[in-house]
Amino acid sequence: MTQSDNHGPQSSIRDVALIVGGGPGISSSCARLFAKSGMGVSIVARNPDKPVLQTLEKTHGVRRYACDASDPAAVELLFQNVVRDLGAPTLVVHNIDGRVAGIFGKAITEAEPGMALETLRNSAFSAFLVGQQAARLMRENKPNANGAKGTIIFTNASAALKGFPSSGAFAMACHAKSGLAQSMARELMPQGIHVANVPIDAAIGWTQEDGTRAHRRAGATVDDNMADPDCIAEVYLQLHRQQRSTWAFEVALRPWTENW
Amino acid sequence: MTQSDNHGPQSSIRDVALIVGGGPGISSSCARLFAKSGMGVSIVARNPDKPVLQTLEKTHGVRRYACDASDPAAVELLFQNVVRDLGAPTLVVHNIDGRVAGIFGKAITEAEPGMALETLRNSAFSAFLVGQQAARLMRENKPNANGAKGTIIFTNASAALKGFPSSGAFAMACHAKSGLAQSMARELMPQGIHVANVPIDAAIGWTQEDGTRAHRRAGATVDDNMADPDCIAEVYLQLHRQQRSTWAFEVALRPWTENW
Amino acid sequence: MTQSDNHGPQSSIRDVALIVGGGPGISSSCARLFAKSGMGVSIVARNPDKPVLQTLEKTHGVRRYACDASDPAAVELLFQNVVRDLGAPTLVVHNIDGRVAGIFGKAITEAEPGMALETLRNSAFSAFLVGQQAARLMRENKPNANGAKGTIIFTNASAALKGFPSSGAFAMACHAKSGLAQSMARELMPQGIHVANVPIDAAIGWTQEDGTRAHRRAGATVDDNMADPDCIAEVYLQLHRQQRSTWAFEVALRPWTENW
Amino acid sequence: MTQSDNHGPQSSIRDVALIVGGGPGISSSCARLFAKSGMGVSIVARNPDKPVLQTLEKTHGVRRYACDASDPAAVELLFQNVVRDLGAPTLVVHNIDGRVAGIFGKAITEAEPGMALETLRNSAFSAFLVGQQAARLMRENKPNANGAKGTIIFTNASAALKGFPSSGAFAMACHAKSGLAQSMARELMPQGIHVANVPIDAAIGWTQEDGTRAHRRAGATVDDNMADPDCIAEVYLQLHRQQRSTWAFEVALRPWTENW
Repeated sequence: MTQSDNHGPQSSIRDVALIVGGGPGISSSCARLFAKSGMGVSIVARNPDKPVLQTLEKTHGVRRYACDASDPAAVELLFQNVVRDLGAPTLVVHNIDGRVAGIFGKAITEAEPGMALETLRNSAFSAFLVGQQAARLMRENKPNANGAKGTIIFTNASAALKGFPSSGAFAMACHAKSGLAQSMARELMPQGIHVANVPIDAAIGWTQEDGTRAHRRAGATVDDNMADPDCIAEVYLQLHRQQRSTWAFEVALRPWTENW
Repeated sequence: MTQSDNHGPQSSIRDVALIVGGGPGISSSCARLFAKSGMGVSIVARNPDKPVLQTLEKTHGVRRYACDASDPAAVELLFQNVVRDLGAPTLVVHNIDGRVAGIFGKAITEAEPGMALETLRNSAFSAFLVGQQAARLMRENKPNANGAKGTIIFTNASAALKGFPSSGAFAMACHAKSGLAQSMARELMPQGIHVANVPIDAAIGWTQEDGTRAHRRAGATVDDNMADPDCIAEVYLQLHRQQRSTWAFEVALRPWTENW
Repeated sequence: MTQSDNHGPQSSIRDVALIVGGGPGISSSCARLFAKSGMGVSIVARNPDKPVLQTLEKTHGVRRYACDASDPAAVELLFQNVVRDLGAPTLVVHNIDGRVAGIFGKAITEAEPGMALETLRNSAFSAFLVGQQAARLMRENKPNANGAKGTIIFTNASAALKGFPSSGAFAMACHAKSGLAQSMARELMPQGIHVANVPIDAAIGWTQEDGTRAHRRAGATVDDNMADPDCIAEVYLQLHRQQRSTWAFEVALRPWTENW
Repeated sequence: MTQSDNHGPQSSIRDVALIVGGGPGISSSCARLFAKSGMGVSIVARNPDKPVLQTLEKTHGVRRYACDASDPAAVELLFQNVVRDLGAPTLVVHNIDGRVAGIFGKAITEAEPGMALETLRNSAFSAFLVGQQAARLMRENKPNANGAKGTIIFTNASAALKGFPSSGAFAMACHAKSGLAQSMARELMPQGIHVANVPIDAAIGWTQEDGTRAHRRAGATVDDNMADPDCIAEVYLQLHRQQRSTWAFEVALRPWTENW
């Protein structure tokens, strides 16, 4: 009801969302919210059979796809399959962090090069591949009621805003994703495609298997010092619905308690 | 309806909005949208009797106040009056551009110092005064359903993002406002007050007296290459309703056609 | 000797330096280094009779001027006097911090508005006035061997890079100075005038009256965790001597131990 | 002579420079200047036998090494060889642009994924490998007279400052390099290693085979609208000689005529 009359989702074009990266946090929140909003929703993971994604299928009709998003041929095929099953996507979210576990908190002198490269591939290169396929399809879409042919959103991290010590590989990957997003925004916005970069400057909460939320860091005295992924999903939907005279490119989100 | 259950405006606290700066663009759009959303709305201008503001009073019950927002005593009194009439504000928008006409496009060698200082006072210093009064009152508010005691939004311009040539005085003022906003955000967010800086990287359209919109630059081939202030107002309302685990500080808005 | 043959100070034009702001730190270091490098050097303070400036006159032939740099007429007169005494300046350093003592560390709710405005005037507005006079004179200079008609350097602080909590007025002033510097750089560089912004992201050491240096913060285990102003002066001289095909606009300097 | 007494290169430790990437521009300028300054100089290229590098060996005693800087084992071996031949490096310059020719100016929809990945590997990943080996060796160095154990400089491009349209792959690579540099600076500066990122916001001139310089863009009316690599080399040497109380992390260089 806060949506004024001329900015709403009244378009007769059915929104099709593709969420690349599938876990219990932002991806699940997006899938649920987008489905509730009437979109056809697809979600992608290396292993699409994990329980959390099966649940999304059952409860919200979300389609699951298997894909290694750092493999060019696999990403091309993925988009073909989504088009075949749901139609051309109008909202694509790249939601892959990409860090190999062994790279966390490693000094530059200790970080294993293979893991650094893997992190770059998982994060930035897969963003490139996904962004490329999305752009190819979206430019053929008709503009919706807000003048947009589609929206591409890159989830990013605080390492995109600042290169922290003992985090060289991740800083590299996150900055790369920001650079890509910026270039794509300048290139695609005049073609009617909205590109956004959303660095989440926080730990992200998630919904536990028993349905309870876990949004409190160990030792914290408040229960909302981790970002609530349901709220992040809402920002993504708002970005998708922005009228093209007033597009936001970058929106960093952080909890009220964050030190930045 | 895209508002998920736990983020909505169900709070029993009545929202009171104060919009500082009153013209036919963003301020009017905010006043209308905030009023439609159920807030008590006040609007402030040096001359509150201009027709556009009288209309807002008639059509939307907006209260009008006269104030020179660069005068400390006047700003203090303004807030007292708003509290008396509507209650403590929960949403304050500082929407003053502040440029003295004679400073537009002036080379640094030609800009009149008195006008440069006036621009600083009108824009940055008034932002300081308004932000200070807002913070003093809001910290006494009870948190609403989203955990927020209030929201302070500074409208800003592209000159906050980049210092353009022949625009030294305005670059100074807009950067100053950004610096203030950033400092206030880091200080007040942990106290439950949401502070946001919104540089509009575009010319801004407006609604003409006959009700038609003017959102096209001279010579443009599209009719939405100026930012639609109704859409800006919507972003402000979304910022105000963000849950405190996921606050955005800076959101730059620009039309799809903008060169940046 | 590290100066390659074609970038050195061989110009027959005599360099004239004007240092606005005069204390025992950066200003004194600049005055000494510039004088040793063969420049005619002038230094400006509200009180030019303080011992540290008298010493500079005696030991390095530095000329002293009294000026309130936030007063347009006074700044105009200052430049006339420098031109009369030494010739048109080729290197102008604005080295005023501008903080009124009572504004330090004040919460936004507690900061005294008059002091905030005074800080803006002392810092940003005086930078505007000084930059304007410098630009007016320098554009009439002949290019030197490096293609430059002159160099204008703004000393800035970490508050120009980040708005810290409880520092709203200073963040405002430092950001304003950055915005001005950026606008002036984009405007004046194509006219052959080099403009630079140098945020010192550190406490700054100084030379004590007995000649010893004080570059260690209380409690520090190393003696160089404050910026050495002699080293800052050297960077300023290097900036002044840069060939115009490779000008730096912003150089932030910080000690190796700084947390940023 | 502008070098004040306590900041000069009087250290008894012999400086050893390693320049990764070898062409007729910045690398050659660095090699010549560093050699003239008394350093032992090594230069690295995939093909170290190109005439320009053979000339550097003859005229300046520069040692040449063959290495694919995106190959972890090759980079490790390279550093071992340099240590064996010249000693542990104290100044390492990563000067690889990394763009595969076919990626230039390609729309995101047209850029070949293999080339995008190759660009990432050549540029950012090789910077990681070189930076890692440099850090491992330098942390064992004794501090020199300026308190530094060594300097690591990353040459970067305007694409590190802004993601331009039709330049996604390069924006990704340059931003990645910036993120890495930032992380390394925050990590290594407190260990006495100076890390710097130098985006050259310009086309870069070079010295032609006949010894003449080529610093003018086609159609330009001035002959210095491309960055002179000799001047860039000078900035690198100045960075290397900065005293550790006043280290610059990022220095963007651009010609006076540049539009930014």
